[in-house]
Amino acid sequence: MKKHILVVPGDGIGQEVTAVGKKVVEKIAEKFGHEFTYDEALIGHVAIEATGSPLPEETLVKMRASDAVLFGAVGHPKYDNDPTAKVRPEQGLLKMRKELGLYANLRPIKLFDELLGASSIKPEILKGSDILFFRELTGDIYFGEKGRKNDGDTAYDIAEYSRYEVERIARKAFDAAMTRGKKVMSVDKANVLETSRLWRETVQKVAKEYPEVTVEHQFVDSAAMLLIKNPRQFDVVVTANLFGDILTDEASQIAGSMGMLASASIGDSTGVYEPIHGSAHDITGKGLANPMASILSAALMLDISFGLKAESEAIISAVEQTLKAGFRTGDIADASTPKDMILGTDAIGEEILKRI
Amino acid sequence: MKKHILVVPGDGIGQEVTAVGKKVVEKIAEKFGHEFTYDEALIGHVAIEATGSPLPEETLVKMRASDAVLFGAVGHPKYDNDPTAKVRPEQGLLKMRKELGLYANLRPIKLFDELLGASSIKPEILKGSDILFFRELTGDIYFGEKGRKNDGDTAYDIAEYSRYEVERIARKAFDAAMTRGKKVMSVDKANVLETSRLWRETVQKVAKEYPEVTVEHQFVDSAAMLLIKNPRQFDVVVTANLFGDILTDEASQIAGSMGMLASASIGDSTGVYEPIHGSAHDITGKGLANPMASILSAALMLDISFGLKAESEAIISAVEQTLKAGFRTGDIADASTPKDMILGTDAIGEEILKRI
Ligand SMILES: CC(C)[C@H](C(=O)O)[C@@H](O)C(=O)O
Ligand SMILES: CC(C)[C@H](C(=O)O)[C@@H](O)C(=O)O
Repeated sequence: MKKHILVVPGDGIGQEVTAVGKKVVEKIAEKFGHEFTYDEALIGHVAIEATGSPLPEETLVKMRASDAVLFGAVGHPKYDNDPTAKVRPEQGLLKMRKELGLYANLRPIKLFDELLGASSIKPEILKGSDILFFRELTGDIYFGEKGRKNDGDTAYDIAEYSRYEVERIARKAFDAAMTRGKKVMSVDKANVLETSRLWRETVQKVAKEYPEVTVEHQFVDSAAMLLIKNPRQFDVVVTANLFGDILTDEASQIAGSMGMLASASIGDSTGVYEPIHGSAHDITGKGLANPMASILSAALMLDISFGLKAESEAIISAVEQTLKAGFRTGDIADASTPKDMILGTDAIGEEILKRI
Repeated sequence: MKKHILVVPGDGIGQEVTAVGKKVVEKIAEKFGHEFTYDEALIGHVAIEATGSPLPEETLVKMRASDAVLFGAVGHPKYDNDPTAKVRPEQGLLKMRKELGLYANLRPIKLFDELLGASSIKPEILKGSDILFFRELTGDIYFGEKGRKNDGDTAYDIAEYSRYEVERIARKAFDAAMTRGKKVMSVDKANVLETSRLWRETVQKVAKEYPEVTVEHQFVDSAAMLLIKNPRQFDVVVTANLFGDILTDEASQIAGSMGMLASASIGDSTGVYEPIHGSAHDITGKGLANPMASILSAALMLDISFGLKAESEAIISAVEQTLKAGFRTGDIADASTPKDMILGTDAIGEEILKRI
């Protein structure tokens, strides 16, 4: 198969982990006889430094022209400490999502059995958890009008959803549920928000098209609690942009670490595959970052954008074998992990490559 | 001391647990020689059924005339399943918060040692956790304009914050931090929301008045993750209305169960004291609800609104002794709890009353 992949490492550890993710894709191409070509482009803080823009036009053009994007992370403490900064790395990420129409963000939360002990949650609560989040990614309070009034003394952000936007993400979630446990939980705050009431009405309507699927509606506060109390009761979850952002970060603790979690952003054209973790400037440049989220994002890319199931499974299995062999990065090590089995970014990447 | 207390049980298990909370207050009055008088008023679904309004004018008048309000819960599945209902129980709760100027919602998350095993989080992660949330309660997306456009096909909610609103809640949090571990974590989403950028700017400014307090800013997604990963790193947390709603429900798992968590809503006039749990119609009328959140809310009332520290501590100690004696409600029982030590709402209430 011939495919053109754009690698967009972005900021911080995005650079380090995406380099390993790319190596894994190259190894797959070699082993399975595919012809993948690669290009690279800038986004986020590194793009601002180089061009003044967090998403240069050239990057967007390359994204549209590629078959899939392997993405890193964006963000920099400089902007976090300065709430008045006008140009910000995250604007690049949000603009990319909007421009490419990436309305569905899939975040699978799957716990490798080998990491049962690495979580702060009890193993007997976690065992067997397997959740697939559908986070809406191009609407909500992320993309509504925002600004200041009263001489800058009042700030506002507008959350907005149309029926059409809710319908299309709901259908994706129900379609996925049909191939899994046939259970969908829709999360909103319909007891307070009008956008959530439209959300709930619309999900109720879409649900009628899927009589075999059991639907449950939960308020976001309650869902945040239940995720920790009983993660096994979750199968497919569908929710708005902001709630999805919060709940999936929280759910990362079910998988032991954010460093394990991959995501796929799909929609109208090119799909983007990225770790759910951020740029993590506290560990940047130290070679400590866990590359597995990027590697597993590459696996999602092969599966979803290219339809290469066996190749995708070869990656997941290599990660599993590496964990079975006892290798860990710092974030997933626990008290029982021997010191010499805790590896850095590149070293654990090599172990995984060996097992493909 | 003479005080007039308004009891507002509201909906579902609100009725059952508030009855026990009131009994505890009566016992305290008797033991410590206070003259407390009581009245009762309607809110929520029961108020809609009786008067058509979720917050009858009479209730509001009585609230303003009382020294404190002991509150239950509001909500009913009828409205949850019908997103188009125009009159809703929660409107009563929100209107009460706004009318009484209850801008600061204090939610202490404290784990009784006896319940270390009841949580889904590992005991060694939990041990010693002690968090005090300050949730802003009269602003944000809860109270901005909301509605529909495009023939009802688009819904919107406006989030809004003024500097003044952020300043006053931030001061409350920093003041509390000075009496505790001198650490404040401010939670926002300043990488995306303008309201959060104003929030962060303002908290940074207030922080300058408290040079002894260590301040940390976290994005809400990251905070949701850290709460589970390492709850001990939290001391005082200050955050916006919506984020506070989500994070405190999540944090209930640190205390073993929502059924243990009390809250105080304070501001310009009468304080309102209520469990953080909801009306829980699935267990309503079965006598199964844990009344401890209501009892501990009564303890907060005595402490914060009446300045009765010893009385407040007598309640907390009675709860602790009851747990030490091995009594549990269903929500905080675990596999090792003998069946005959699992009590219903009234029976565990009696055990607590005995120990005051
Ligand atoms: C960096 C930030 C803007 C982003 C988001 O909130 O969507 C991130 O947290 C994510 O989840 O991809
Ligand atoms: C019932 C609901 C409107 C309310 C809220 O969201 O504030 C509740 O969840 C709470 O936390 O008191």
